Amino acid sequence: MPEYAFLKGHGTENDFVLLPDHDGSVHGDLSDEQMAERVRALCDRRAGIGGDGVLRVVRDDDQWFMDYRNADGSLSEMCGNGIRVFVRHLVEEGLVDPSRPVPVGTRDGVKTLTVEGDLITVDLGEPTVLGESKVAVPGHAWVARHVDMGNPHAVAFVDSLDDAGTLLEAPDHDEATYPHGVNVEFVVRRAERHVAMRVHERGSGETRSCGTGAGAVMVAAAVADGVVGPPAEDVAYRVDVPGGTLTVTWTAEDRVLLTGPAVVVARGTTDL
Amino acid sequence: MPEYAFLKGHGTENDFVLLPDHDGSVHGDLSDEQMAERVRALCDRRAGIGGDGVLRVVRDDDQWFMDYRNADGSLSEMCGNGIRVFVRHLVEEGLVDPSRPVPVGTRDGVKTLTVEGDLITVDLGEPTVLGESKVAVPGHAWVARHVDMGNPHAVAFVDSLDDAGTLLEAPDHDEATYPHGVNVEFVVRRAERHVAMRVHERGSGETRSCGTGAGAVMVAAAVADGVVGPPAEDVAYRVDVPGGTLTVTWTAEDRVLLTGPAVVVARGTTDL
Repeated sequence: MPEYAFLKGHGTENDFVLLPDHDGSVHGDLSDEQMAERVRALCDRRAGIGGDGVLRVVRDDDQWFMDYRNADGSLSEMCGNGIRVFVRHLVEEGLVDPSRPVPVGTRDGVKTLTVEGDLITVDLGEPTVLGESKVAVPGHAWVARHVDMGNPHAVAFVDSLDDAGTLLEAPDHDEATYPHGVNVEFVVRRAERHVAMRVHERGSGETRSCGTGAGAVMVAAAVADGVVGPPAEDVAYRVDVPGGTLTVTWTAEDRVLLTGPAVVVARGTTDL
Repeated sequence: MPEYAFLKGHGTENDFVLLPDHDGSVHGDLSDEQMAERVRALCDRRAGIGGDGVLRVVRDDDQWFMDYRNADGSLSEMCGNGIRVFVRHLVEEGLVDPSRPVPVGTRDGVKTLTVEGDLITVDLGEPTVLGESKVAVPGHAWVARHVDMGNPHAVAFVDSLDDAGTLLEAPDHDEATYPHGVNVEFVVRRAERHVAMRVHERGSGETRSCGTGAGAVMVAAAVADGVVGPPAEDVAYRVDVPGGTLTVTWTAEDRVLLTGPAVVVARGTTDL
């Protein structure tokens, strides 16, 4: 088996295997199914390296492109923590200038990131606040707010995060509302503009953090707090996830900004 | 933080981070508590690299020594799958001759391994068959055979491996019999000289495989099948673990041999 380069990193313990493949010469010849198989092998936490997903680092014309797949091999539009780890890698390799905004292409369009010491912020774009739906785990069912952050979310406010069960199994959700599956967030209030959440990501199961999920949770909380559409001035919420703390800002320009730490912890080669 | 070399490998999905440190110059200056902390960081499956334990690769006089720690940082005498991955690494690096028996020092004394293509066999030494004890998970309790393989095991024959629960929590065991904790194996019969098992390793939780556990299970099964002390001639059992298949041979010389695949899947550097 040929060896190829990898890195491993995480943002608030949402962890990823990065695959540098700037000109597509390393993995570009694989079929969709072969690539999905490689992603599953890499993300296997015992037989592989382990991760919630794979970020293939591609150079597309003059811009970096994040080719993201979930641990099960499926394609995904965007990943808010993943793209922050992606930019941490670009900064560490000297591939971008951290003193200026960094544009990164994704299947959900071009995102812009800013770097400030340990923290990296991604502009997740305009949220779309939709109607109410229902989610359920064995023994519990809740009303959930449908928020689209480029990918679909169902946000349920609960009395206790323990109620959400182990989340090892995907919560039931409305197939009509979410024909391609959904990321489900369970949220509790901690203080004013401070919430805590757990998340079940489609394709990955329960994770320690989900960036777009934190964005959806903040927007749902702000709406519940009386914000209608974009706020008159920027509003920031602290969002605790099992793997750490994120800050989500909903700006007066109707953008959602996700801020938090992002690190690369290992680099090397593999033949998986 | 200084960077240092690591590898990741597994034997039947019992996975390890290997740390080459031949002359002790990389990690040798750490205190016991600092090393334990580093092991926990490396074995963290989200914030680190992930593994059931760490194998520090040390050269002790003229012999290789496996300095093994569980994922929680605690020291352990031996690890039957770990030592097979350890030798796979030595073979791949050209550090030992695979056509001859390879001696490796451990806290349980010197073990001898043999390499035959994809398979690596470790001589786990003489088993010590002791009395009966009890183990329990919520809602179930079983009689267990106490087998010492250099480290302590409690082997319980059960009707179904599902009865063992999730094993995420340590099964209850007799503190007087096992003052330093115990590895607990649950076993079912599959056919003549063919069993399947699940294991809860002290310090690591449920793992996909445990080498000394497979040895203890085979010996307990052979004893249950009427073997008293060492068999008159070599007896081999197939032992299925969640992560693959091992073969355990109890020889007429009263040695337990563990045979199975062992691979290194990634190599690189980390600053964890």
